[in-house]
Amino acid sequence: MPLLVMKFGGTSVADLARIRNAAAKVKAEVARGYDVIVIVSAMSGKTNELVGWVNETSPLYDAREYDAVVSSGENVTAGLMALTLQEMDVPARSWQGWQVPIQTTSAHGAARFVDIPRKNLDAKFAEGFRVAVIAGFQGVSAEGRITTLGRGGSDTTAVAFAAAFDAERCDIYTDVDGIYTTDPRITSKARKLDKISFEEMLELASLGAKVLQTRSVELAMRYKVRLRVLSSFDETDETSGTLVCDEDEIMESKVVSGVAYSREEAKLTLVTVEDRPGIAAAIFGPLSEAGVNVDMIVQNISEKNYRGNEKAVTDMTFSCPVDQVGRARKALEAARDAGSISYETLEVDTDAAKVSVVGIGMRSHAGVAARMFSALADEGVNIKVIATSEIKISVLIDRKYMELAVQALHDAFELDKAG
Amino acid sequence: MPLLVMKFGGTSVADLARIRNAAAKVKAEVARGYDVIVIVSAMSGKTNELVGWVNETSPLYDAREYDAVVSSGENVTAGLMALTLQEMDVPARSWQGWQVPIQTTSAHGAARFVDIPRKNLDAKFAEGFRVAVIAGFQGVSAEGRITTLGRGGSDTTAVAFAAAFDAERCDIYTDVDGIYTTDPRITSKARKLDKISFEEMLELASLGAKVLQTRSVELAMRYKVRLRVLSSFDETDETSGTLVCDEDEIMESKVVSGVAYSREEAKLTLVTVEDRPGIAAAIFGPLSEAGVNVDMIVQNISEKNYRGNEKAVTDMTFSCPVDQVGRARKALEAARDAGSISYETLEVDTDAAKVSVVGIGMRSHAGVAARMFSALADEGVNIKVIATSEIKISVLIDRKYMELAVQALHDAFELDKAG
Repeated sequence: MPLLVMKFGGTSVADLARIRNAAAKVKAEVARGYDVIVIVSAMSGKTNELVGWVNETSPLYDAREYDAVVSSGENVTAGLMALTLQEMDVPARSWQGWQVPIQTTSAHGAARFVDIPRKNLDAKFAEGFRVAVIAGFQGVSAEGRITTLGRGGSDTTAVAFAAAFDAERCDIYTDVDGIYTTDPRITSKARKLDKISFEEMLELASLGAKVLQTRSVELAMRYKVRLRVLSSFDETDETSGTLVCDEDEIMESKVVSGVAYSREEAKLTLVTVEDRPGIAAAIFGPLSEAGVNVDMIVQNISEKNYRGNEKAVTDMTFSCPVDQVGRARKALEAARDAGSISYETLEVDTDAAKVSVVGIGMRSHAGVAARMFSALADEGVNIKVIATSEIKISVLIDRKYMELAVQALHDAFELDKAG
Repeated sequence: MPLLVMKFGGTSVADLARIRNAAAKVKAEVARGYDVIVIVSAMSGKTNELVGWVNETSPLYDAREYDAVVSSGENVTAGLMALTLQEMDVPARSWQGWQVPIQTTSAHGAARFVDIPRKNLDAKFAEGFRVAVIAGFQGVSAEGRITTLGRGGSDTTAVAFAAAFDAERCDIYTDVDGIYTTDPRITSKARKLDKISFEEMLELASLGAKVLQTRSVELAMRYKVRLRVLSSFDETDETSGTLVCDEDEIMESKVVSGVAYSREEAKLTLVTVEDRPGIAAAIFGPLSEAGVNVDMIVQNISEKNYRGNEKAVTDMTFSCPVDQVGRARKALEAARDAGSISYETLEVDTDAAKVSVVGIGMRSHAGVAARMFSALADEGVNIKVIATSEIKISVLIDRKYMELAVQALHDAFELDKAG
């Protein structure tokens, strides 16, 4: 029988009425002839309650016990979902991570899948069960301890099961009805995409379109799992939502698929850094250890060089989230005190935002950058930093121009028009 | 190292502060040189919340899914307790039922222990862990599904671990500070017992002194596990609470140890039942199947016999909780309609209460019954039904005299005086 994976996030199973609503969607797929693996999150708020208890009990908690406690939220939803399906005459059974068993590494709180053996679930499907409800976000280590995958891990669980069971598709039910060309709160012209490639979705996700966990998209790309994002609050059918798939499946020829943004960015510049092999590692190593998520990096020739320094020097500019500036400053000062780097000053600009255009069409179309820069220039938006990848161009700009820039780029690339 | 089992009920782990309080008691025992197995219940209210969700989802729920859902409350407490102990520098690890594994039958919702292998826990103790925190009330079936033992099952878990690990003692921390000669709400003369025998505790527990689950006392008696009942809300030491133990350990020579009562009893009499072999089975079989907890049973010769009936007939009187009278009546009428029994009328008296005196000393002391009956007669209390066992005499009386009867018996057997 063809198999479908359906994942319901916390708001989609927030209470018994919503669990019933989600179960009705599962039943509809069973009626269409699918066996279904359902992945559930904890009822919304429950994981936060459990995490709060752990933090209050033990600020530097043992991650093994953290995992044992916080994984219980998903177990409750899984059992309730199985019961709800049974009430609707759908033969269903719940599975906790250790029962499958979902084998993971021992990296508690951030575990990775090792294997998802099919044997136990296949046996139940063979017995006539039509639905296996899996507690998301968790697994079991080789030591027999419960592990969790980190927040948002239920998306990853869903994709991993879809890969392991050769699912026809992995439907991620959430509180939005798909992936948009940009944030509809910024421009009403934002349009829901029918399809988007894995690569584009990865760039959009990491840039702030927080619909799918990045890791789940990476995993889907690697195993070519077709992902569909759709709303659990709407009536849905086979055409609802947005399909995230291999680019081969996408017929549209748009150069740019979407405009992403990140509002709270900071630009930091180390002025007059010694320009020698290994200097980048000496700077960004300590930042990484301090947990600073460095995003764009630009290395300029320092003005000083023109003034005839005997030593080769450079300026190093990078961006990171505003709330990590303090940590970044501390890490850099510590590295300077330790003598591993030297710089004259650290310039910090906390008034930045990042805007990016993303599209696999860029690979074959020239002139995207020029069109982007001129659209911004037309609106008088100054660009602080530019960074490019194969399918993305990002600029750091003054935060006050962010909405304006998103709207201008959305218009410039005619994203309101389909295909 | 000597080993202790300590069990904390729901009110003793109701919130993080109380968990800390319980953990401090565990730490004190570790400091005294014990390895400790801690059994925890769900934080009070949590199990009821989960049971409520299950019932609302599916009134005739699948017991396998019920167990998967409701067992999660204990898992949360176990993890939090382990974290709390770690914060206090006590090396502790939590264990869910399947991790031990606590092997049970597949009777979901009312599972029985099959085996508790020592291997996994012993290995952890050998590594230097001093405390194993076990989620109470649960186990795992041979099919790998989570089972629960039924409400109050955490007491039984504690005793089973004490037996499996040859514990020196099993301490049950609860919200009362021990076992009393009778309910202190009925007479202020009620006195806390230092020791009580398993047999007496069983009679007291089943009669309404709801401190320990009956099954846990039975198990303790079978495996000679010394049980101590004490309050988690008081300062406690080695002499706190009441020790429930083998009668060999009890030096006191009291004839009666306690006065128990049960307030909501009903007396039912089947008038003019055919007196033939198998009639008791024909009556009480259907009652048992209908879930009626029949307690006292008395068979009288019917008045009719004196009136010269050709057939031998009798009257059959029994007691049961008042709220089961409807069920009892239905079961008896169904049996009469089916022709398996016959009777003239069913007389029902719902104004009864049961009062019992319990004591292992009765075995060797005559005259306890006479002393009891005369104490009641002195107060003008009429006796409806009498039932006796080796260490207990129970009477059914009018409910309005219940408190008076308890006080009179407590005085008559001088239970306010020690030893």
